[in-house]
Amino acid sequence: MYRTHSNGELNASNIGQEVTLSGWVQKIRDKGFLIWVDLRDRYGITQLIFDADRTPKEMMEAASELGREFVIQVTGTVIERESKNPNMITGDIEILATMVSILNKSLTPPFTIEDDTDGGEDLRMKYRYLDIRRNPVRENLIFRHKVTMAVRNYLSEKNFVEVETPYLIKSTPEGARDFVVPSRMNEGQFYALPQSPQTFKQLLMVGGMDKYFQIVKCFRDEDLRADRQPEFTQIDCEMAFIEQEDILNTFEGLTRHLLKKINGVEIEIFPRMTYDDALKKYGNDKPDIRFGMEFGELNEVAQHKDFGVFNNAELVVGIAVPGGNTFTRKEIDKLIDWIKRPQIGALGMVYARCNDDGTFKSSVDKFYDQADLASWAKVTGAQKGDLICVLSGEKNKVRGQLSALRMELAERLGLRKANEFAPLWVIDFPLLEWDKGTGRYHAMHHPFTSPKPGQLALLSTNPGKVRANAYDLVLNGNEIGGGSIRIHDKETQALMFDYLGFTPEEAKAQFGFLMDAFQYGAPPHGGLAFGLDRLVAILGGQETIRDYIAFPKNNSGRDVMIDAPAPIAAEQLTELSLQLNLKS
Amino acid sequence: MYRTHSNGELNASNIGQEVTLSGWVQKIRDKGFLIWVDLRDRYGITQLIFDADRTPKEMMEAASELGREFVIQVTGTVIERESKNPNMITGDIEILATMVSILNKSLTPPFTIEDDTDGGEDLRMKYRYLDIRRNPVRENLIFRHKVTMAVRNYLSEKNFVEVETPYLIKSTPEGARDFVVPSRMNEGQFYALPQSPQTFKQLLMVGGMDKYFQIVKCFRDEDLRADRQPEFTQIDCEMAFIEQEDILNTFEGLTRHLLKKINGVEIEIFPRMTYDDALKKYGNDKPDIRFGMEFGELNEVAQHKDFGVFNNAELVVGIAVPGGNTFTRKEIDKLIDWIKRPQIGALGMVYARCNDDGTFKSSVDKFYDQADLASWAKVTGAQKGDLICVLSGEKNKVRGQLSALRMELAERLGLRKANEFAPLWVIDFPLLEWDKGTGRYHAMHHPFTSPKPGQLALLSTNPGKVRANAYDLVLNGNEIGGGSIRIHDKETQALMFDYLGFTPEEAKAQFGFLMDAFQYGAPPHGGLAFGLDRLVAILGGQETIRDYIAFPKNNSGRDVMIDAPAPIAAEQLTELSLQLNLKS
Repeated sequence: MYRTHSNGELNASNIGQEVTLSGWVQKIRDKGFLIWVDLRDRYGITQLIFDADRTPKEMMEAASELGREFVIQVTGTVIERESKNPNMITGDIEILATMVSILNKSLTPPFTIEDDTDGGEDLRMKYRYLDIRRNPVRENLIFRHKVTMAVRNYLSEKNFVEVETPYLIKSTPEGARDFVVPSRMNEGQFYALPQSPQTFKQLLMVGGMDKYFQIVKCFRDEDLRADRQPEFTQIDCEMAFIEQEDILNTFEGLTRHLLKKINGVEIEIFPRMTYDDALKKYGNDKPDIRFGMEFGELNEVAQHKDFGVFNNAELVVGIAVPGGNTFTRKEIDKLIDWIKRPQIGALGMVYARCNDDGTFKSSVDKFYDQADLASWAKVTGAQKGDLICVLSGEKNKVRGQLSALRMELAERLGLRKANEFAPLWVIDFPLLEWDKGTGRYHAMHHPFTSPKPGQLALLSTNPGKVRANAYDLVLNGNEIGGGSIRIHDKETQALMFDYLGFTPEEAKAQFGFLMDAFQYGAPPHGGLAFGLDRLVAILGGQETIRDYIAFPKNNSGRDVMIDAPAPIAAEQLTELSLQLNLKS
Repeated sequence: MYRTHSNGELNASNIGQEVTLSGWVQKIRDKGFLIWVDLRDRYGITQLIFDADRTPKEMMEAASELGREFVIQVTGTVIERESKNPNMITGDIEILATMVSILNKSLTPPFTIEDDTDGGEDLRMKYRYLDIRRNPVRENLIFRHKVTMAVRNYLSEKNFVEVETPYLIKSTPEGARDFVVPSRMNEGQFYALPQSPQTFKQLLMVGGMDKYFQIVKCFRDEDLRADRQPEFTQIDCEMAFIEQEDILNTFEGLTRHLLKKINGVEIEIFPRMTYDDALKKYGNDKPDIRFGMEFGELNEVAQHKDFGVFNNAELVVGIAVPGGNTFTRKEIDKLIDWIKRPQIGALGMVYARCNDDGTFKSSVDKFYDQADLASWAKVTGAQKGDLICVLSGEKNKVRGQLSALRMELAERLGLRKANEFAPLWVIDFPLLEWDKGTGRYHAMHHPFTSPKPGQLALLSTNPGKVRANAYDLVLNGNEIGGGSIRIHDKETQALMFDYLGFTPEEAKAQFGFLMDAFQYGAPPHGGLAFGLDRLVAILGGQETIRDYIAFPKNNSGRDVMIDAPAPIAAEQLTELSLQLNLKS
């Protein structure tokens, strides 16, 4: 037996006991006749003491040869520590060592195994197994486990059944790019890895499973933006015989449970906001409502003077930055530079200071008098001491720009507090969105989303106006889940495929099984999927999903630790009836 | 709201309530003025009654148009049933319908949605979503969910952390064939889907996670034998600072817990048997010990007469078939035909009847007298009324043949009882096994398995004799789990790769990251993986894993429901820098 106890449990009540511990050498203080060693494992740190007066000579010698990250086994007696550490569970005791054996030596690690390491991202990823030894990384993974256990137990108690759906499925051209898997046994044919178990969960509803969930890996071969992974995990859910209201209540319940159980935060009300309102008030469909700075549309109060920039704009819109009047001219100029960067793309920014004496000072005083600026303040809700920031231009663009500014300012002002949680349902999403690239409408959610009752006819007259019972759950400005009520009859589904540009033959070849299924008594159904990586990160008070994934890939989709992907043997290609066709 | 109650909960206490139910039409009895409908959902069946005297006329008409598997919503009053059905939860009541609406019609299903269906395997797989509506299939999936929840909660309480390891990893030539995934972003390179998370779980141990588990899909591109799937699910576990004894105790604990919680069966002792003993006593390494028929080796008592077949055999070995003396001559001849089939390959069988009067009658009376046969009975443990079956030949072959015969006879005699559970640890597996195909030794478990302490030197003198701390957990004649203590130092691992025919360059290219990791303080570790599909099937009292998989593939690796794999678009191939290279 390698140990009688972990390194995180011995305390004063164990004094006098003989114990055996195993773990890693965290730290050594060697005074020659006294050697202290901090022994670490997942559960904590226990201090060992080698004392020339009391520890056998050969063990003193062995102890003097230890190095950082050596793996050792120690036997000794629990004794009271002279200088206690009240911040550690084991801080009252130490182990007077009588035996030490080195289980494995260690080279000097490429970075320090400390909470604040000196290792950069690349190095930590290459040696991820050492990075995981660090408390914050390990605790994140344990945190993730706690969240998934809480999810599973909650849903299971609510009669949801976790059903495993297949990973080797069929490639479909709709949506993002599939990863494909050549089939050796079926020459010239390919499986695809699922982007989500969407059709399978719908078939489970047709099959009468009633309530399904699955915590499941999904795959998308996209050009990776920052903080995206080619493989990611979903909490995938579906219910039959439900309306949107049932779904919102069910998953609001799950989220409320998680916030309570994991974060100790009680949130009674999950506000709801339409997609249109979210865009109008916050400039995007996943607003962070932990703080205000709601948009004020200023067309009415700003387009009556000679300021052509505003008069020619589709939308003039501003926000009140709380306490922003303290910004210096230089700070404001920097802010303007920031929003003019190509990533944001604003052409400029108008601002008005709200002085403490009730007067205003704006960058467009030439055009607008105090009464005008007072109207701006009223519309944006600005108080004395605030700064009003105003952008103008094409509606969709300017909303996005002001949204980016709002988030940046909130970040700078410390309004995005990691331990504060503000969930929000965004509902009534459009069914379709215009795709400039292909010059046609695409399904905003996916082609299985049902239009709102009665809006099917709108498809042929004003497709952009068709709304769906589609909803996103937003938490602290991040979409953590999304879903919809599905189409459950063959005719509507065929119509939708037709509308999305599938020929009947294509629709049949790719989704014939689903449309067939709809003919055999498909119940009304709908669902939702949470992005687990994101959810866990936000509950953990962070926004970088990579910190909550054991072995993440980099932005080129590479695992730099195992060095994958990699070339394969020529025989493997031949067996798969493939050959390389390199462009370079 | 589609329903106030499910179809499995209303009883006499609800009489008088107005309720709304939804579900599928299971059965209709139409007497014109009275129509009974059995309404089904996942939770049960509730009887509806449409009564011309009490149900609105248009609803009577609607009811008369219902068909099997129509999806309907019904509102009505709970009333007492005239002829009660004590076998159903809802058997005391029925719903007097006042409103019915058809939510979706159904074509006539291609097979009946009944517990005993008229659908064959192929049809059921093509319409798996209808198959899942059948109670036994649905209940199997719910059963699987219950097992996985029990596994997760048990391991989680024991401080195991479920960590997700990546699905897009690197191909390695060792072991079975990988499924590969071409990388678009890394031209000419491929990911592989994991055959198991083996190296990652070992790295998690190097990373100090201490106790890891994961219920995870694994992939093997093998030519599929019956009841194998290209994707399958493992309960994958690993522990640090443990010896074999710790692992056996931990997972014996898990299995005991499952048998108790899922099957209500208490099993105190999990017997242990060495690999060598298992072969000697049962002819294979996963013996079903629910029944006896242990092998008796007869060389000593059968090679002293003039019977050349036995005298020339490496092994003469028999079993006593309980009550087998009742077999007719014809039945025995059939048994002999059975073992001579090419799948078994025996050349013949000698038998001896143990008569009730204590005498014997054998097929080799010419060579052996009563005293000889009495010795056979003693060695095989045969009693009066039994039949002794004896095979002979090359040791390994004849053991396999007699093992097959033993299992077949147990099946015929009803000794393999589904509700009886006999777990067994088979331990001390050989480290290596001889592979005739390649003419060299291969790792029996995998190349990360550690030889038993002190046996490393044997590798160069008598490799076949080297034993490992490798173990299988056997349940009712099926291997449900297996694992080993791993190598945790670079030198031994390098030696092992060398022994298995890897050049140092190959070893470094494929597993360099693991050997690097071993240099930074790898702890002693080991683990085990359960085959979840098999485990669930056996706990469920069956042996066909396909019955416990929602969407299984057929023996050609095809999903006949979605028709995958399938050709992909030429552009997809081009994007992946690939072209087809068809053999046919």
